[in-house]
Amino acid sequence: MDHERTARIAKLQAAMDAQDIDAVFIYSPVNRNYFTGLTTSNGLLLVERAGEPIFYTDFRYLEVAHRVLRGMEIRKFGPTAEQLAVYAKMAAGWKHVGYEGTLAVAQFLPLQETLKNVKWVSVSTLISGIRGIKSAREIDAIRRSAEANSALFAELTETFRPGMSELEMLRHFRTIMASRGLTESFSPIICAGTNAVECHHQPDETILQPNSELLIDMGVMVDDYCSDMTRTVFCGTPTKRFKEIFDIVLEANQSVIRAVRPGVRCCDMDKLSRDVIGRYGYGEYYDHALGHSVGLEIHEMPSFSRVCETVLEPGMVITVEPGIYIPGDTGVRIEDLIVVTETGCEVLTRNTPHEVVIA
Amino acid sequence: MDHERTARIAKLQAAMDAQDIDAVFIYSPVNRNYFTGLTTSNGLLLVERAGEPIFYTDFRYLEVAHRVLRGMEIRKFGPTAEQLAVYAKMAAGWKHVGYEGTLAVAQFLPLQETLKNVKWVSVSTLISGIRGIKSAREIDAIRRSAEANSALFAELTETFRPGMSELEMLRHFRTIMASRGLTESFSPIICAGTNAVECHHQPDETILQPNSELLIDMGVMVDDYCSDMTRTVFCGTPTKRFKEIFDIVLEANQSVIRAVRPGVRCCDMDKLSRDVIGRYGYGEYYDHALGHSVGLEIHEMPSFSRVCETVLEPGMVITVEPGIYIPGDTGVRIEDLIVVTETGCEVLTRNTPHEVVIA
Repeated sequence: MDHERTARIAKLQAAMDAQDIDAVFIYSPVNRNYFTGLTTSNGLLLVERAGEPIFYTDFRYLEVAHRVLRGMEIRKFGPTAEQLAVYAKMAAGWKHVGYEGTLAVAQFLPLQETLKNVKWVSVSTLISGIRGIKSAREIDAIRRSAEANSALFAELTETFRPGMSELEMLRHFRTIMASRGLTESFSPIICAGTNAVECHHQPDETILQPNSELLIDMGVMVDDYCSDMTRTVFCGTPTKRFKEIFDIVLEANQSVIRAVRPGVRCCDMDKLSRDVIGRYGYGEYYDHALGHSVGLEIHEMPSFSRVCETVLEPGMVITVEPGIYIPGDTGVRIEDLIVVTETGCEVLTRNTPHEVVIA
Repeated sequence: MDHERTARIAKLQAAMDAQDIDAVFIYSPVNRNYFTGLTTSNGLLLVERAGEPIFYTDFRYLEVAHRVLRGMEIRKFGPTAEQLAVYAKMAAGWKHVGYEGTLAVAQFLPLQETLKNVKWVSVSTLISGIRGIKSAREIDAIRRSAEANSALFAELTETFRPGMSELEMLRHFRTIMASRGLTESFSPIICAGTNAVECHHQPDETILQPNSELLIDMGVMVDDYCSDMTRTVFCGTPTKRFKEIFDIVLEANQSVIRAVRPGVRCCDMDKLSRDVIGRYGYGEYYDHALGHSVGLEIHEMPSFSRVCETVLEPGMVITVEPGIYIPGDTGVRIEDLIVVTETGCEVLTRNTPHEVVIA
């Protein structure tokens, strides 16, 4: 275990102590990875309020666990009933026990049934709060991820041509990405022409026509960290109508980027983008949140949504992605990835949208 | 909705009726895809014991839902509290309500809290039972997936050479795969030399040495269906020791493939493989189940495990993957994908292991 991960566990234990939580069951691969640096399909990180955590896994991962988790106690999972008996014994000293909201009901109910005398509390917000503030090392990984993503996008726009189908463009994306040793942080959204109004359209046989728009929402992973970027470009000389909608979305995007700084509430950033788009009369065509945090996962907290009252802090990494989707007309989304700094924010994505041209 | 998916819902409703279940909440993307043919990151298929199911999703997927789910009632998700009120109203006529075991606790608890007067029952086994018997169309997709996987493996063994690292081999795998429009069904396991004893080793900088073994466990997806295959090959002339272990694992694999037929219990197939390996004195080095079903997901039920008493039926698609992993010595796994037929089984994977040679 490196120093940073030891510090993360200490932070978790401090929060547990403040909230009077005696133990936390961490089953999700992503949180286990966050707190240990080890990725396995199967395992449990059991963290008590004080002392060393215990890592349980099956025989397939014991060897790698001993190699990566130096200093941590590692135990082999027994059969389910036996394992539950182990927890029950430990629970003699527990009053409040934390679970992750993503935990599967099939795993939770037997725990609840076995540890009858404890009160179960969700630690999703607690953990996402810790994960929401990225360290310098995490920001560096996300920066490299965003740069690789931007470079990939630039290369793609040089190879995409009218006549290609969305699925062909998807294949180009994946082939170039793989040849660079990258993986995708989510299945890319590629929308030719009016498919862009679908917002989360899945690539199909639709052909990219000359003089039509193309919306690409894509991300890659570098050292386990995600990136995310959307560009809506025009294949040919943009129509007046496209330009009109594009400029409004860009204004919403840029207004937020200028306004972001520590101390500002997430919901107010969402509102700012909504105000810009509403001022032009397109509010009803912008029906999703402004953005979401990005890290080990493509969707993290806090989010730039109507209901998220989290106050921005340095180290938060969030997307700024307003959009306008008018059925039967046009769809535009412009998404940048930013990191909140001491005085404002740094934009991690490259290729400012208006510089992108498709032949 | 095509005829096959309508029939799947009818099968689900018949099972619900037999088990006195009034409604089932299907949240998981994979089950929603199975019963509707639509893949979205967000949605709920609400199936009552009789009548048409209702599909809920957010605004991002309404358009595609209307296009794909012709004939089904489609509704837009309201805010959580509002949505729960809708279910509560419907629940007036419900006694037993089904949930998926994979459902997140954070989604389940509010449902449980709101629908106070119903008894919640897991429908995981019910649904996996339906999904366990593949239709001709599903088997065709899995066959094409296994063939694409086998062809990819054959091409890879022609490009892999001593001196390459596991990560380089991984990059080759992904680049060739992507150029063929395929995606992976799981992150491939590539083990050079003694890394094979780790069983589920993650590719790293380890270099493939001349006169050493190479274990590759890989799968792709075709039309949403997974394939899975493991080959352990030797780079150079196999040592006597490798050959010895290899032949025992192959005997276990082939013994099972010969024995599989409708009417046989899964656990007995697991035992058969364990008996073969145990007879040679290596039982303690074979610590995982013999196999798992494969379909829309890479791990489905039933499984060839010690505890699975499911009786084989035609249309089940399962892996046969015995292995021996001796720390500090050698690790071998041989995995084929089979479909149970009326009289035995058909092997869907190609490249019989002993034909594979790496230069």
